[in-house]
Amino acid sequence: MPNSIMPKRIFLAPEPRAVRDIFDQSDVERLRALGDVYIHEGGPVTDSLFDDKVANADIIMGQFDLPEARLKRIPSLRAVFNVEGNFLPNIDYDYCFRNSIRVLSTSPVFAEPVAEAALGMAIDVARGISKSDRQFRDGSEEYGLAANVDAFSLYRQDVGLIGLGDLGKAIVPLLRPFGCRIRAYDPWLPAQYVRSLGCESVSLDEVLKRSRLVIVVAGVTSQNQGFLGQQEFALMQKGSGLVLVSRAAVVDFDALLDFADRGHFRVATDVFPEEPLPASHRARRTRNLILCAHQAGALDAAIRQIGKLAVGDAELIARGLPPVLCKLAQPETVKLLRSKPIDKS
Amino acid sequence: MPNSIMPKRIFLAPEPRAVRDIFDQSDVERLRALGDVYIHEGGPVTDSLFDDKVANADIIMGQFDLPEARLKRIPSLRAVFNVEGNFLPNIDYDYCFRNSIRVLSTSPVFAEPVAEAALGMAIDVARGISKSDRQFRDGSEEYGLAANVDAFSLYRQDVGLIGLGDLGKAIVPLLRPFGCRIRAYDPWLPAQYVRSLGCESVSLDEVLKRSRLVIVVAGVTSQNQGFLGQQEFALMQKGSGLVLVSRAAVVDFDALLDFADRGHFRVATDVFPEEPLPASHRARRTRNLILCAHQAGALDAAIRQIGKLAVGDAELIARGLPPVLCKLAQPETVKLLRSKPIDKS
Amino acid sequence: MPNSIMPKRIFLAPEPRAVRDIFDQSDVERLRALGDVYIHEGGPVTDSLFDDKVANADIIMGQFDLPEARLKRIPSLRAVFNVEGNFLPNIDYDYCFRNSIRVLSTSPVFAEPVAEAALGMAIDVARGISKSDRQFRDGSEEYGLAANVDAFSLYRQDVGLIGLGDLGKAIVPLLRPFGCRIRAYDPWLPAQYVRSLGCESVSLDEVLKRSRLVIVVAGVTSQNQGFLGQQEFALMQKGSGLVLVSRAAVVDFDALLDFADRGHFRVATDVFPEEPLPASHRARRTRNLILCAHQAGALDAAIRQIGKLAVGDAELIARGLPPVLCKLAQPETVKLLRSKPIDKS
Amino acid sequence: MPNSIMPKRIFLAPEPRAVRDIFDQSDVERLRALGDVYIHEGGPVTDSLFDDKVANADIIMGQFDLPEARLKRIPSLRAVFNVEGNFLPNIDYDYCFRNSIRVLSTSPVFAEPVAEAALGMAIDVARGISKSDRQFRDGSEEYGLAANVDAFSLYRQDVGLIGLGDLGKAIVPLLRPFGCRIRAYDPWLPAQYVRSLGCESVSLDEVLKRSRLVIVVAGVTSQNQGFLGQQEFALMQKGSGLVLVSRAAVVDFDALLDFADRGHFRVATDVFPEEPLPASHRARRTRNLILCAHQAGALDAAIRQIGKLAVGDAELIARGLPPVLCKLAQPETVKLLRSKPIDKS
Repeated sequence: MPNSIMPKRIFLAPEPRAVRDIFDQSDVERLRALGDVYIHEGGPVTDSLFDDKVANADIIMGQFDLPEARLKRIPSLRAVFNVEGNFLPNIDYDYCFRNSIRVLSTSPVFAEPVAEAALGMAIDVARGISKSDRQFRDGSEEYGLAANVDAFSLYRQDVGLIGLGDLGKAIVPLLRPFGCRIRAYDPWLPAQYVRSLGCESVSLDEVLKRSRLVIVVAGVTSQNQGFLGQQEFALMQKGSGLVLVSRAAVVDFDALLDFADRGHFRVATDVFPEEPLPASHRARRTRNLILCAHQAGALDAAIRQIGKLAVGDAELIARGLPPVLCKLAQPETVKLLRSKPIDKS
Repeated sequence: MPNSIMPKRIFLAPEPRAVRDIFDQSDVERLRALGDVYIHEGGPVTDSLFDDKVANADIIMGQFDLPEARLKRIPSLRAVFNVEGNFLPNIDYDYCFRNSIRVLSTSPVFAEPVAEAALGMAIDVARGISKSDRQFRDGSEEYGLAANVDAFSLYRQDVGLIGLGDLGKAIVPLLRPFGCRIRAYDPWLPAQYVRSLGCESVSLDEVLKRSRLVIVVAGVTSQNQGFLGQQEFALMQKGSGLVLVSRAAVVDFDALLDFADRGHFRVATDVFPEEPLPASHRARRTRNLILCAHQAGALDAAIRQIGKLAVGDAELIARGLPPVLCKLAQPETVKLLRSKPIDKS
Repeated sequence: MPNSIMPKRIFLAPEPRAVRDIFDQSDVERLRALGDVYIHEGGPVTDSLFDDKVANADIIMGQFDLPEARLKRIPSLRAVFNVEGNFLPNIDYDYCFRNSIRVLSTSPVFAEPVAEAALGMAIDVARGISKSDRQFRDGSEEYGLAANVDAFSLYRQDVGLIGLGDLGKAIVPLLRPFGCRIRAYDPWLPAQYVRSLGCESVSLDEVLKRSRLVIVVAGVTSQNQGFLGQQEFALMQKGSGLVLVSRAAVVDFDALLDFADRGHFRVATDVFPEEPLPASHRARRTRNLILCAHQAGALDAAIRQIGKLAVGDAELIARGLPPVLCKLAQPETVKLLRSKPIDKS
Repeated sequence: MPNSIMPKRIFLAPEPRAVRDIFDQSDVERLRALGDVYIHEGGPVTDSLFDDKVANADIIMGQFDLPEARLKRIPSLRAVFNVEGNFLPNIDYDYCFRNSIRVLSTSPVFAEPVAEAALGMAIDVARGISKSDRQFRDGSEEYGLAANVDAFSLYRQDVGLIGLGDLGKAIVPLLRPFGCRIRAYDPWLPAQYVRSLGCESVSLDEVLKRSRLVIVVAGVTSQNQGFLGQQEFALMQKGSGLVLVSRAAVVDFDALLDFADRGHFRVATDVFPEEPLPASHRARRTRNLILCAHQAGALDAAIRQIGKLAVGDAELIARGLPPVLCKLAQPETVKLLRSKPIDKS
């Protein structure tokens, strides 16, 4: 049943990632089994390099510039893999869609580590783990019920998800054994789909009002920057918890700190408007706040999956089959996405 | 099919717990529906009170002294509920077993909150949440991969459970969506039973050697005090994690701190040899240690379940049926248990 | 931590089962590792055999007569295992309870195969598998939607369980991926317990009225014989399904056949008032009925687990620990049970 | 966040399905809320009807002829929904891919009912339900263990899936509570993807050799017709079971009957090379065979979901968002598919 395979040409220029971080030896061997592999690191893809090594490629892995002028000169091109993790404006998506060139991202590798971190941050917000640790360090801890006056449990709790993309979908099964009632708001998904994941599809207001714990996993788009601000936070229950693991740009960060500081809710965030956070930033002194250093996704174990996802789908594409592991750029939405590229990873 | 019910006499003296903490209005009403309920708070059960109100009881809820001499004078007695949470040496268990008097404990209410806290502490140990928060507070945080140099993920991880009683059994389903390989050591349980819970039954050494994360949920008995000491810790992997949520008496606490301080493993503990921990105790300054103030179980939501468990089983017993909600004292093991009573709750 | 073990004496007379059916070589070796094992097959346990080999036993496996007079003469006795599968009136249970002698049954081995058969019968009742097969054999089949005019799906269906003991509890997880709403009626269990299994605790009438599919897994007691009769069946929805896998004595079998024959509901039954069913019995010609020959539990794979359950608990008892694998006789209920012993198995 | 919506024109001609079978009142209302809806039933889409009502459509639901010549004349077209259930050669797929016109099928509605039927057939094959029923009808039944000499259980069984598309993926969760070890063969899927579903990715030979039960859910393509024949069946274990619920064309049906008749394995099939099966076809007399009349998917409850899937995705497309409920035609594979259209449904 396997389709016959013509040898392919693969051009690999993963900057700002390093080949050795994302591909292990077996990944590279699987690539080489598909055909000629050219690896470029340490500098931009110049025009002469392009002429020499990219123009005859079947598969490209990397996020260098691919405007229409360049794409037109790669007639054999079947797929472009972004191995950094976001769909960036580096490529002419429309040209690719018109010409059945798959544009893919290995971002699914981050779903599991971010979901795990989000659950850990959620339990911390609910049960006061890092707060207790902090109090022990300065000798102010209280014990047992006294330690738990503000605590709540996730078991059978009302939990809200803002966003039900890859990250949200990875969180749902982690909450399942707690028997949570999960309400979700995602304007890109129909109610029927949300229900098929075992969640209730509700409005943003409903998520905010009804949830004891809200987890924000919405990606940032041209349409939703700062959509969680003072007005939205005011809808949340007093004594509730908020976990932010997607992008800081979806919230009004100052309002978030205000609401935490005055004890309206307790917050854990993995992302910040500026990273590194300025030394004098008030977030460092804000009460009812747990700060994590953009470490939810950037786990070595996840980075090492990037190559495996790209190679797995490259093998399918080389055999004339549709990719199934990476995220596919969608004509309707890809140009709405507004994540910033990573710095170095 | 319901059995006919004769009105029962119920004596309720829950000290050191307070009636209003563990029974809500509906619980008390359900008790009263069973027969006469006498509530005693604020002092010991004196002999004259005993003669007056206990000697004709069918059901007792409380953990006051019930030696053979007293038990013999309660011929109608069918059940004694410990509503504090431990089987204590306050009662002549043998007399009860000989006379088909059920001795029960509401300790199962603590399984869920402890399991939740254990998972939160485990993710914190693995992913460095409270460590990151601490670093933000003093301006020393690093971001992304740099923050995660020591981090590991629970997904598909080797996890070890020491103890697979009520607490361990509540943790297993929380780990399930992470796809962990769970090895368990519990000397009171056969391999077949351990496997039926989806775990591998192994020796203590195997748990220690093979696990990246070890969760200690063994209760303390007359036979296992301090059974986790320097020799056992030395078997654990460098860079592994240890979570302790049952009783401090099962570990050599000083050895535990030594291994954490020198970075052999990272530890989160909810229990201490002395509580409150002395202000000068070295644990407060130990590195690679997360300290929680005996707050894993003592959650208001759990305490409020105590009455519901006791009432539910009292209803069964009043109808001549076996209890199913509380933990039953077992003739073989009840006298091995060595938990200390709670102070005030 | 292992307790010291004194060699035990074990008397094994499993009639009507054969030793080789229920114990494999490794099971027997595990027993011999506990002490002296005496095996008796092929005849009753006479008084002289009793004097010689039973009177000094620590553990008995078998269901021969053990009235008080005999039990009094076995002072070392700690446990009696029924390896046939029912608690029978062969033993003086009160004496055992007074003297902390555990009476156990290996009946849990049947829970999984019966649950599996019940699910298969339920899907057959709902989706018409054996009906279609029968029609193909006589050339009257219809296809596609026409074959499915009476069919229904279990997905998100209202399912009722009558009985939530070992069998019912084994069925619940099999229904879980179908997203069923499960209502359960079990007069021996409190609502809280039923809910903890993910079911709704309702009255018998509610189960009958609200369920599209009812599964009867109630054991027979002195109190519930024939409790499902014409009046109860009339409450069930037209076009619903009924699966009976516990004991025929809990239903009015003639009424059951009436309701099936006239198409009020469709039935699958594994049990019959008489077995073998008389050749002329009307059930053989009843419409809307699927007949299974008491084959739900009696699977070789289950029978071979009997020995493993008994040996596993015997090992615990020999070490002074409570048994956890077998079902324990309960003082409150054991004498209500009314299952007939098996013929030969 | 909702995108602005321009009124759309929707052309609906679902033949051979009827509008009233697949859309309920609320579905039609949701469509009308999107813009103008034109419904055509009872005859082909003639050129004059096309000019009048199709040429200005944004969304088409139906499987009538749409060659390039027609597609070119519908400049506003964004999506074409096949509401019959297969991707047929009625449309110029390449033109659609080049022009970002989504071609979708509502086939996912069949995944659940087929998975349910497959499980029911699997338990029947394993446990002999319809066989027992047949024997009762002619008075030849045997009871208990004697009924089960050939039976096996699915619990912890080696199960093989041939095909892991929508159908296979719906079966996996139903098998999960049985603790099966699932091996899967699907030449269109990478091992990593198969593992992410909790299955082992193996060769076709391995599936056949290692499985006690094989479930065939492979769709038929231009490349796999008759790929399961005498040579493959000979690899299967004696006494194993085979369930066929996708398409008869993937097997050599005569060889299948031979292997069943001689008792090499037991089979349940929902599909046949010709439907209706000729009255004299040997399958009607073949032993070890369970025959179902192409009834696995064609359940009223599934048919009624067709409209809901199509409407849900039409709403997304109208808002400029990517569809998520229906199956998307893929440029790589759509022209390999070879399912026959339904007759009338």
